[in-house]
Amino acid sequence: MISKIVTLTSDFGLRDTYVAEMKAVILSICPEATIVDITHEIEKFSVRAGAFALASAASYFPKGTIHVAVVDPGVGTRRRPILVQTGRGVFVGPDNGLLIPAADRQGITNIYEITNKKLMLSQVTNTFHGRDIFAPLAAHLANGISPNDCGPKIDDVVKPEFAKVTSTGGTVIGEILHVDDFGNVITNVREPEARQFSEGDWLTVELPNCDLRLRFAKTYAEAKPKEPTALVGSHGYVEIALNQGSANREFQIRIGDRFKLIRK
Amino acid sequence: MISKIVTLTSDFGLRDTYVAEMKAVILSICPEATIVDITHEIEKFSVRAGAFALASAASYFPKGTIHVAVVDPGVGTRRRPILVQTGRGVFVGPDNGLLIPAADRQGITNIYEITNKKLMLSQVTNTFHGRDIFAPLAAHLANGISPNDCGPKIDDVVKPEFAKVTSTGGTVIGEILHVDDFGNVITNVREPEARQFSEGDWLTVELPNCDLRLRFAKTYAEAKPKEPTALVGSHGYVEIALNQGSANREFQIRIGDRFKLIRK
Amino acid sequence: MISKIVTLTSDFGLRDTYVAEMKAVILSICPEATIVDITHEIEKFSVRAGAFALASAASYFPKGTIHVAVVDPGVGTRRRPILVQTGRGVFVGPDNGLLIPAADRQGITNIYEITNKKLMLSQVTNTFHGRDIFAPLAAHLANGISPNDCGPKIDDVVKPEFAKVTSTGGTVIGEILHVDDFGNVITNVREPEARQFSEGDWLTVELPNCDLRLRFAKTYAEAKPKEPTALVGSHGYVEIALNQGSANREFQIRIGDRFKLIRK
Repeated sequence: MISKIVTLTSDFGLRDTYVAEMKAVILSICPEATIVDITHEIEKFSVRAGAFALASAASYFPKGTIHVAVVDPGVGTRRRPILVQTGRGVFVGPDNGLLIPAADRQGITNIYEITNKKLMLSQVTNTFHGRDIFAPLAAHLANGISPNDCGPKIDDVVKPEFAKVTSTGGTVIGEILHVDDFGNVITNVREPEARQFSEGDWLTVELPNCDLRLRFAKTYAEAKPKEPTALVGSHGYVEIALNQGSANREFQIRIGDRFKLIRK
Repeated sequence: MISKIVTLTSDFGLRDTYVAEMKAVILSICPEATIVDITHEIEKFSVRAGAFALASAASYFPKGTIHVAVVDPGVGTRRRPILVQTGRGVFVGPDNGLLIPAADRQGITNIYEITNKKLMLSQVTNTFHGRDIFAPLAAHLANGISPNDCGPKIDDVVKPEFAKVTSTGGTVIGEILHVDDFGNVITNVREPEARQFSEGDWLTVELPNCDLRLRFAKTYAEAKPKEPTALVGSHGYVEIALNQGSANREFQIRIGDRFKLIRK
Repeated sequence: MISKIVTLTSDFGLRDTYVAEMKAVILSICPEATIVDITHEIEKFSVRAGAFALASAASYFPKGTIHVAVVDPGVGTRRRPILVQTGRGVFVGPDNGLLIPAADRQGITNIYEITNKKLMLSQVTNTFHGRDIFAPLAAHLANGISPNDCGPKIDDVVKPEFAKVTSTGGTVIGEILHVDDFGNVITNVREPEARQFSEGDWLTVELPNCDLRLRFAKTYAEAKPKEPTALVGSHGYVEIALNQGSANREFQIRIGDRFKLIRK
């Protein structure tokens, strides 16, 4: 059921050799693995941003995909390495909330603490569990071991305090989850909550640094160039976008900002 | 004739998960595909820069390669998704000129509009045709479908208004196409037009922000460190380079700048 | 003995199509090659930084791996293209010291000058030996040719003038090798020389722009947030780190800085 496709998500960046070392370890154990980078440009130590990226991308991968994610400010402390098994695949990484939103979307079936030293590199450093614990485990999974070979079953994992959305009569209160590379600002408001707005509705968005007036739209291109708009993006979340511009830069919106969205 | 090698070119950057989602879709349909990134760091919405990158790299790939390119300011509007078939492979992307220079170099044999919904994701968003239309089509092509399965043949595609070069008696008028990561400035003057200059010739380059005096050379290393030079680069275009420095930064040259190149 | 795994290390960046052109050439000659990027974000023309990256990552790869590295300020001059064979694999690149630290760690068995034009692209440019000489050679090696097919054996390669470490009675004099993407500052002091310090020792680090007082630790997380610390990192070198911060930015430390490390 588990395939030989391994994805990697981290805050390691592409300048250093950390990602390459993880790939080297995987290919040393499972030379036929197909390794795909989700992204390594997660903001340093931002578990929330990592969780968002993983949750956005994971479910497009084939059934049986092995997802390794490492945004790990607590590496070398007592936080546990875990494996989360779902109806569609497995997630491997630190027990700090990073894996849970993505795994939740697929339906979590089992969680294990990773304790089996035979599935780790012979020397485990205190600073780089991605290479020393998570990469070799992923490769062994690709080679066919069972998730329950990695250690004991657990059920008390860290749940991320993800910002809740409250929604009443045309007013939605939420939080900025992510700013993409185009400067589009992604909120934590999901598509079902956005169904109360129709194409063409005028919305007011009250943010810490500015108030915006914009129209709810279906595509970026409906707005004139440099005009702000709100729409459900391809992630399934409401985005605030500036047609052919950067909403983030123009309106000084930051990840974590709370906002109020009001129709009319 | 079509291989399982799929290249990707876009302005998506590597911070977000867009590229990973395209790869996920491709591997879900064709798990044996070999996916190669050309670049995802095209300047946002710059169809010209994307066309230049694709045209530079495409012909080094094996025969039968499937090239997917997405620089797509008009996504969600009426611009058509197209497939361009050439003597060496196929190109898939938006009908905005992006694919044409690369395909032209290989000899275009057929162009199709992509209309067959069976070859798309079941839900096509208005913002991300790369994932929803182009990636699945590429994977189906890798699996062996014929280009003409994707839709009707067409012949009225958008031709890019690429800057023309005029060349008379030792004077060449052209345009800056690209600035590479070393700060080398690449012009639209091709190798055949540069044959009128010999190694060691003194040239004057009149640019909007500066006039340069430099020598025509064969290699970067012929110039002293920090000395400007002009040469035919590995792309086959004339470049203005600063040995061990950034010509772009030093001389404030920008993409789109028009220039006059005069011998002596 | 040589595998089909090819790694690439360069200062080409990911914005341009240079890396893709190398991959295209490799796949044209050996379609089954597994290509892994080590990094392409080496500081431009920094042979030392490239050598450090390659030496950090190479030995995690499987036996028989082919490593191609290109940081090559002398391209187009008389510097020779070389192949270095070791007990674990082969290294291909310019004769400027780049390959030697990584190869030394694996035990160099033979060095060859690359002269066999049949193993190069038919047209070798003066600016891009990565694509025209090194990539095709790597692919032919993956296809099974012998290293000694590439040219004559040599033994007078360029040895890098790597900064030496002097260590006497609790004082170590060394040099900054690298700044990683987290802002951790990596010195050229190796793990064996660091054994003279114990966990919890107070150290003074005299640098050009500041003097630091910090404790020798085992993990990043032992220090309080924003507190500096020194530890042996996952590379096996002593690093200066700022827990959840950038030591590089905070203390203005630069690659090449000489320092004195004193216990107590």
